[in-house]
Amino acid sequence: MDAISVIRAKRDSEELTGDQIDWIIDAYTRGAVADEQMSALAMAVYLNGMSREEIARWTAAMINSGERMDFGSLPRPTTDKHSTGGVGDKITLPLAPLVAACGAAVPQLSGRGLGHTGGTLDKLESIPGWRASLTNAEMMAVLRDPGAVICAAGEGLAPADKRLYALRDVTGTVESLPLIASSIMSKKIAEGTGSLVLDVKTGSGAFMKNAADARELAATMVELGNDHGVRTVALLTDMSTPLGRTAGNALEVRESVEVLAGGGPADVVELTLALAREMLAGAGLTDADPAKALSDGSAMDVWRRMITAQGGDPDAALPRARETHTVQAASSGVLTRLDAYAVGLAAWRLGAGRARKEDPVQAGAGVELHARPGDRVRAGAPLLTLHTDTPDAFPHAEEALKDACEIAPSASYTPTPLILDRIG
Amino acid sequence: MDAISVIRAKRDSEELTGDQIDWIIDAYTRGAVADEQMSALAMAVYLNGMSREEIARWTAAMINSGERMDFGSLPRPTTDKHSTGGVGDKITLPLAPLVAACGAAVPQLSGRGLGHTGGTLDKLESIPGWRASLTNAEMMAVLRDPGAVICAAGEGLAPADKRLYALRDVTGTVESLPLIASSIMSKKIAEGTGSLVLDVKTGSGAFMKNAADARELAATMVELGNDHGVRTVALLTDMSTPLGRTAGNALEVRESVEVLAGGGPADVVELTLALAREMLAGAGLTDADPAKALSDGSAMDVWRRMITAQGGDPDAALPRARETHTVQAASSGVLTRLDAYAVGLAAWRLGAGRARKEDPVQAGAGVELHARPGDRVRAGAPLLTLHTDTPDAFPHAEEALKDACEIAPSASYTPTPLILDRIG
Repeated sequence: MDAISVIRAKRDSEELTGDQIDWIIDAYTRGAVADEQMSALAMAVYLNGMSREEIARWTAAMINSGERMDFGSLPRPTTDKHSTGGVGDKITLPLAPLVAACGAAVPQLSGRGLGHTGGTLDKLESIPGWRASLTNAEMMAVLRDPGAVICAAGEGLAPADKRLYALRDVTGTVESLPLIASSIMSKKIAEGTGSLVLDVKTGSGAFMKNAADARELAATMVELGNDHGVRTVALLTDMSTPLGRTAGNALEVRESVEVLAGGGPADVVELTLALAREMLAGAGLTDADPAKALSDGSAMDVWRRMITAQGGDPDAALPRARETHTVQAASSGVLTRLDAYAVGLAAWRLGAGRARKEDPVQAGAGVELHARPGDRVRAGAPLLTLHTDTPDAFPHAEEALKDACEIAPSASYTPTPLILDRIG
Repeated sequence: MDAISVIRAKRDSEELTGDQIDWIIDAYTRGAVADEQMSALAMAVYLNGMSREEIARWTAAMINSGERMDFGSLPRPTTDKHSTGGVGDKITLPLAPLVAACGAAVPQLSGRGLGHTGGTLDKLESIPGWRASLTNAEMMAVLRDPGAVICAAGEGLAPADKRLYALRDVTGTVESLPLIASSIMSKKIAEGTGSLVLDVKTGSGAFMKNAADARELAATMVELGNDHGVRTVALLTDMSTPLGRTAGNALEVRESVEVLAGGGPADVVELTLALAREMLAGAGLTDADPAKALSDGSAMDVWRRMITAQGGDPDAALPRARETHTVQAASSGVLTRLDAYAVGLAAWRLGAGRARKEDPVQAGAGVELHARPGDRVRAGAPLLTLHTDTPDAFPHAEEALKDACEIAPSASYTPTPLILDRIG
């Protein structure tokens, strides 16, 4: 077995054998297959695809490249959520403590943001004192009480995926269904959760721009999860508009706290509750009432204890950007479109995201939306507020937002449903 | 400009702009684009192709990555030959001194073998004392007298190609028309020859298995050469059968010396003379008589002085392998097929070639053919002799040769012409 013959097979549109897949993932993890070989293979996979059987084997090989966690000793059933990533997608922040408040344990191992979508850990790190890295023992303690943990995945979990993920990021091979599905599911299965809900996004702000691709990705991942004994369902959700009224790190934490306090934007509350119900069903907790846990403060209580357990101060003032700039509505009418990708790109340019994985992010940077599609706006009224510590970025952010908004003179707006389908 | 946007453009089947091509070749040469990025781009080029305009710009960028040689001070016109590589292709060895004997200067900068086709430098290194590396001053001295030099290309010539060639070799991106054409032509144009003859091979033992691909490659390279002021023509030649009666290093030197002595296999003599006539025509030496230079010993005289000038002893005994093994004809009849690829693979497994560029080769290893297509054979008579210092390789070589020969009971054999076409 050698790397060149595996690359050639995929290059020539052949189906890789199980032995070829096992060998190349293991050899790549050991360093016997070089990055330049793996990236050529990733491009061949990008362009020639993989069958469901190949994706299943590839995923299994990545799981086997490292350790698997075991939550069997916990007194509560475990359940987790994964989102394929979107603009303003802060749902993990209210969702994890909410589901824990309803009786499940939520081991939410998260990542950092790259490109135009923010990362959950970057958002939480805007809370003074909070730290993302926990030992396995610390993580188990937080999972026992208060029951939800959001932290960085350890080095031992699917190390093949860690290397490949970083490689895809610099070689133009990110947006590939087989590589996305196997990357997400190898981490989630190795993590050892009992059940899993996938939030698969489609629209301009998502990796999967069209719904057919997103649906195929969702179906592939649901099958992978169930085949490995993880009860898995997926919601297909709209990402043509940002979620909520903020995109940025501290800005999104503030909005999440509003949701936990029983308020917050309607779309964020809707999606948080829908995902919570699916997670609780997956955990067998069908009697739980997540809406009540938001209104009676029990979810907020878990949030405060979860933040405190990881060194954070839930009462500390969140950082604010040094400079703001307001974008006004160009005309009067109804806002019919507010493009998620453009807002994500603007937030990224303002400093909320990073270009390379070693770059820092600005806690206070981002975009605040004063109107959402369907809202009436007046010419000259504030539409967006841009936040940054580096005001040189304002023109670049405005450039990204140039065609982001559409205002129609008469009310010709038809709302898109947020939750498009359920797969599982 | 950044590597990811260039990779994405080719991945999405866009035509790269001139600026994108100039930038990525320059950045790769400087080390600002990583090997793993270039290999992803090479795979995208392999699968999505390049237009003639892109190939021309890519070639120019590789030429500009290093120095260009200048043979303007030589008293004779320069002419060179390049073969796309085949099994038993020792033509450069008799050809270069032959053309020099007829009045041209032949600056033959050559490479080493990789895979199933042997390298000219590996063959010559089987001559005791001969060395491939010359300084530019030494090379110019040999080019003045005796007029032909076969040596390794210096580090300064098309360095982008050197890096990319080594990268393609380990990433399954060798057999790509745009990458082959630009690699060959950037080196030959940077070398500074006044005219060039291309031997573009097609058939099982060639990189281009089918004639249409080989013809397109030839036409692309002829256009590239002429556009850069190098008078270029191509011969399209058959490589379904090995050339001559040997494939290996010292074995092929011995056969080349037979040709220079006025003998040798008919096909090797035919191709050597055809290429010599094209080279001499390109150099403007239309009155030269290469057949006479073979029969009157003047080509042999240049060969002996050329070998001596590079430290070799033209009278020294050539190395022989320690072990030989004979493969017998399985039945009686006419040999209708002797597969070039299978013989090349067998020679490689016997030790004539290398798997990695740092591996050594065996001087004596290879395959000797006792019959060629069209010859009558008797069951049990010797068909091939395998030569090696490592007899463990015999079964692997025999495995490669399992289906290489076809013997028909009656004389149903129609010979394939060796020279299929002339393009230019």
